[in-house]
Amino acid sequence: MCSKLHLPGKSPGLRTSSHPYQARRSNFHTSGDRCLISKEVVQGFMERCMISVGTKPHHARSLAEVLVEGDHRGHYSHGLNRMEIYVKDIQLGICAKDGEPVVEKESVATALVNGNNLLGPVVGNFCMELAIKKAKEAGIGWVVAHGSNHYGIAGYYAMQALKENMIGMSFTNTSPVVVPTRGKECTLGTNPISVAAPAKDGDSFVLDMATSAAALGKVELYDRRGDSIPEGWGCDAQGTLTTDPKRVLSGGGLLPIGGSEATGGYKGYGLGMMVEVFCGILAGAQYSKHIRTWKETDRVANLGHCFVAINPENFAPGFSDRMSDLLSIQREMEPAVVNTPVLAAGDPERMNMKRCEDMGGIPYHINVVNYMNEFAKKIGVHPLLPCDTLISN
Amino acid sequence: MCSKLHLPGKSPGLRTSSHPYQARRSNFHTSGDRCLISKEVVQGFMERCMISVGTKPHHARSLAEVLVEGDHRGHYSHGLNRMEIYVKDIQLGICAKDGEPVVEKESVATALVNGNNLLGPVVGNFCMELAIKKAKEAGIGWVVAHGSNHYGIAGYYAMQALKENMIGMSFTNTSPVVVPTRGKECTLGTNPISVAAPAKDGDSFVLDMATSAAALGKVELYDRRGDSIPEGWGCDAQGTLTTDPKRVLSGGGLLPIGGSEATGGYKGYGLGMMVEVFCGILAGAQYSKHIRTWKETDRVANLGHCFVAINPENFAPGFSDRMSDLLSIQREMEPAVVNTPVLAAGDPERMNMKRCEDMGGIPYHINVVNYMNEFAKKIGVHPLLPCDTLISN
Repeated sequence: MCSKLHLPGKSPGLRTSSHPYQARRSNFHTSGDRCLISKEVVQGFMERCMISVGTKPHHARSLAEVLVEGDHRGHYSHGLNRMEIYVKDIQLGICAKDGEPVVEKESVATALVNGNNLLGPVVGNFCMELAIKKAKEAGIGWVVAHGSNHYGIAGYYAMQALKENMIGMSFTNTSPVVVPTRGKECTLGTNPISVAAPAKDGDSFVLDMATSAAALGKVELYDRRGDSIPEGWGCDAQGTLTTDPKRVLSGGGLLPIGGSEATGGYKGYGLGMMVEVFCGILAGAQYSKHIRTWKETDRVANLGHCFVAINPENFAPGFSDRMSDLLSIQREMEPAVVNTPVLAAGDPERMNMKRCEDMGGIPYHINVVNYMNEFAKKIGVHPLLPCDTLISN
Repeated sequence: MCSKLHLPGKSPGLRTSSHPYQARRSNFHTSGDRCLISKEVVQGFMERCMISVGTKPHHARSLAEVLVEGDHRGHYSHGLNRMEIYVKDIQLGICAKDGEPVVEKESVATALVNGNNLLGPVVGNFCMELAIKKAKEAGIGWVVAHGSNHYGIAGYYAMQALKENMIGMSFTNTSPVVVPTRGKECTLGTNPISVAAPAKDGDSFVLDMATSAAALGKVELYDRRGDSIPEGWGCDAQGTLTTDPKRVLSGGGLLPIGGSEATGGYKGYGLGMMVEVFCGILAGAQYSKHIRTWKETDRVANLGHCFVAINPENFAPGFSDRMSDLLSIQREMEPAVVNTPVLAAGDPERMNMKRCEDMGGIPYHINVVNYMNEFAKKIGVHPLLPCDTLISN
């Protein structure tokens, strides 16, 4: 059996979402009032919270940029909602305030980085910049880091490569919440894979997916609603598939993509292991069940990440033209259900960002805003998040 | 809707298998007599067949080695069963007999290769060797090829890196048989991902998986038995999920890993697209629905592949120790069901090879052997496959 699973920093009324096709629904179609807040204002608030506990201003900015991007793209589980954990990690000294990441070993195309237990986004930005620099010179940069912490949405780093017309990739290991096929113990994290590839005119393919069938936050959401979860999302403490979210959350675990063995869950299990090979194993960080659980705050995380940049200029000419055609083939296909268009990875997030722009801000559930403001008051932060533009549903 | 799907070179009585957990069952637990034939004898036979139609001896050997390895590992869908297609491609001039692959562009860590329309394994071996060479120098080698043909099991190439204590990866695009989430048209192949990583004492992790929920051969098998397929494997010509294998095979298509949108099929769709980005798009080969269908033999395939080698020496010391521990954590876990041990990717194939060794050969269904011998007679090949060691079931 696994430790009891729970998401940290969960606030009442908060809706989490971890996959693109659900992002819009979970954000806009729930009950309760929401406050529209601009990206800049949310980012400033998060920076002030982090700085108030001693984080270096440029580290605080790195973190806030990743988190606000998570919210903006509709992945609320990886945004403002998580700020409290980062603040507490700094307060407790579990995550370092001082220092910078350092390169421990490198070649023209590779690097091993020690994250020096800094905030994940500080390590992530350092490594991705290095991977891009190497890709400019050698066609590819493959950079792994140990000694890191949660880095937010994996896609943030992969997308940095788009600015240079390169393919970007990002992987990280995470706390064990996934049970391998045939097993009963949580030995893998949701270990995400992100791959971003540039097409013409600013268009792109942005895959950003956990290797678990569903996110923990979604199981919690079903639990709160009193609903059953679909078959294939989770198992109980004996490793038996269950549709009862309570059994998943109390000693059970998530299943890898594909669900049960019969429906191909061993493929998702293999992909989760692949991410662990690229991260904890290659970087010499913690890995698998050795990674601390969400609940533990008494030891450093020592997470491993992997960042890749690939320069299409080193391969066949016309990359972005072919990418645009590949995306069009999918998007322009007649859909199986009318008015349910075929999307490409990254499209749901693009639609979410467009909605934010149309509305003039990111809509946050009022409970989340109130919760974060209460939290900020305790650590002496002001001004707080404004809630003067309310929208209903 | 998609073209009617069918697997080429299918012989009566043949059982295909495409995923590790099924390999043993599909091979050993079916009815009918089987002939035990040694790897060497099968390989020699395949080489003679290829040479008889004008294939260069060393190209014939490259192909035979990959195919016999497919059978040995239990992936009968990618072994002797497929030889007929390769022979016909050479006979028809659709695949080239002469020439060698050439490097068109390269850096210390990357290369673009023109496969010159040669047999897939000839191109694959050339590229994987080059990737390993680059990884020795630069820590990583990322090599893509266009102008290639079917290359057998993806894992064969990834595993070449194990001999050098490196991580190996291999990807290929394939003929369109998979329908993207929400769509109704086959625009992606089964686009496999293979990743191999060395552990201690010759142990390893070998992921070799299609990005479709199931293989076409499995759907055909259910159809022949008159059984329904599990929900999530395929859809009909309107893109509607179906459990009727006939509807999948007649104008429908396979679903990506994860199945329907509700169960996370968009993740498998994203992974299939990722493989296409690495192969057809990066290499400038055919891609997506532009790739010829299985039925077409009037134009060259121009498939794209991608090969990667990563040298753990360029990263944290102790890689193989951590790999062994990672594998042990999974394998030594108490299983959910007694006597159904948790496996690591590559274990089912290892078990299959062990059984072959214990028995003294690869067990081929007698119908397959007879079919291949009839075929060989037509192209003037002798000696034929022997069938003097029969086993039942």
